Amino acid sequence: MNVFDKEYSGDIQLKKIGIISSCFPQKFGIPRQPGIARSSAAAIRFFPPYNTVEMVRGLEEFSHIWVHFFAHQAVVDGWRPTIRPPRLGGRKRCGVFACRSLHRPNHIGLSAVRLERIELQHPDGPKLYLSGIDFLDGTPVLDIKPYVPYSDAISSASEGFTAIADSNNGVELSGNVVFAQEAADFCVGYEAQTQQPLRGLIEEIIGADPRPRSQQGKKDFGMFLWDVNVRWRVENEGAVVISCCLQN
Amino acid sequence: MNVFDKEYSGDIQLKKIGIISSCFPQKFGIPRQPGIARSSAAAIRFFPPYNTVEMVRGLEEFSHIWVHFFAHQAVVDGWRPTIRPPRLGGRKRCGVFACRSLHRPNHIGLSAVRLERIELQHPDGPKLYLSGIDFLDGTPVLDIKPYVPYSDAISSASEGFTAIADSNNGVELSGNVVFAQEAADFCVGYEAQTQQPLRGLIEEIIGADPRPRSQQGKKDFGMFLWDVNVRWRVENEGAVVISCCLQN
Repeated sequence: MNVFDKEYSGDIQLKKIGIISSCFPQKFGIPRQPGIARSSAAAIRFFPPYNTVEMVRGLEEFSHIWVHFFAHQAVVDGWRPTIRPPRLGGRKRCGVFACRSLHRPNHIGLSAVRLERIELQHPDGPKLYLSGIDFLDGTPVLDIKPYVPYSDAISSASEGFTAIADSNNGVELSGNVVFAQEAADFCVGYEAQTQQPLRGLIEEIIGADPRPRSQQGKKDFGMFLWDVNVRWRVENEGAVVISCCLQN
Repeated sequence: MNVFDKEYSGDIQLKKIGIISSCFPQKFGIPRQPGIARSSAAAIRFFPPYNTVEMVRGLEEFSHIWVHFFAHQAVVDGWRPTIRPPRLGGRKRCGVFACRSLHRPNHIGLSAVRLERIELQHPDGPKLYLSGIDFLDGTPVLDIKPYVPYSDAISSASEGFTAIADSNNGVELSGNVVFAQEAADFCVGYEAQTQQPLRGLIEEIIGADPRPRSQQGKKDFGMFLWDVNVRWRVENEGAVVISCCLQN
């Protein structure tokens, strides 16, 4: 390694520039990629000294932004040289640098998400409202950049293993999510109170089949969306949302 | 800031996972975005323990990758809350989070570049060969990810200020780069010896007009590409490459 010895020294210290609040308080239910659940929502607030209005000036002209985040909840598990991507049905291993798993060196996540609006008058500084997200609530932010189609949108790029249809994604459960009356009523009330599209989000999340491969045999699932405990059951290759109730 | 006090503590320590060798030993000449100079080339080598073949397994299936890099040469200048993007001709300031300047908090750069090939048999571990790059030689790497069109290519994203034609980019000098005979001869010899497309790269770099706004009045320019000192002059709204010679 002598060729690059002089460069190979010292860690790099980065600051948390902000923090994400998100509709996903737990990992279960988070879409495998951003853009899948359009009703999903998150907000970013900036820590001082990064929380001035001038630092986001002009950002409102962009419909999408890149969020570099620190996958803090993946740190405890460390990183692995190879991963079994869900897209490959857990059958095949690929290198961690060949996939987007968060169990990677440095645990840096990267997502392009929709920038819905920016609240400039917030007492803590600017607040960015995002949708189509895949962030865990409480995730630290390392950087925000505008999405620039000119250099970022490479539609001709080859898809690698992601070209393979995900056998565990959107096939078995999609479009077949029914609500028990009580759950449906709860959604109506919750949406009226909070303006958060709970029912649509539940449909999108379950429709994309959030079940990890290891739990494909299970029937009953629970997940938290915002402060709501959502219980659902797999039935006849579809899903029934049994109940929704506020978390204590 | 009480709402998120508990999260606002401690820096994040990251590792350099690798290092970039690039055709750009100096900042001058580096394209403002990746993808502009197709002849530009770089390679990434990984530091141990990240330099195993299994960690890049499957990456060869992707045509493009994301490189998260640490803009080490921008650190000395710190960061600024607002920037004058070259695209806006230096006339207008925008927030640092609304542009891609490297003078940003954490100095994290992000580029989607073409993955030409992977050398697996290198004694130091896998070596990635890239083109269409905008990296300074010696740049530390924080992460590598496959470019996944499904979630990364958002061609409908709005362009913000980047929709404005860059008055200082590809207008005045493009397609009008001529070579003095001596310089042309040098390129032929250099390309035969190194297999590096020097002439094409010079044309692409000058064609994209690398002159900073502050130097628009200057006539004579010099830049290093690989180990070659390239001298060129602005003449009649075009450019003449006067000489190319090996750096001592």
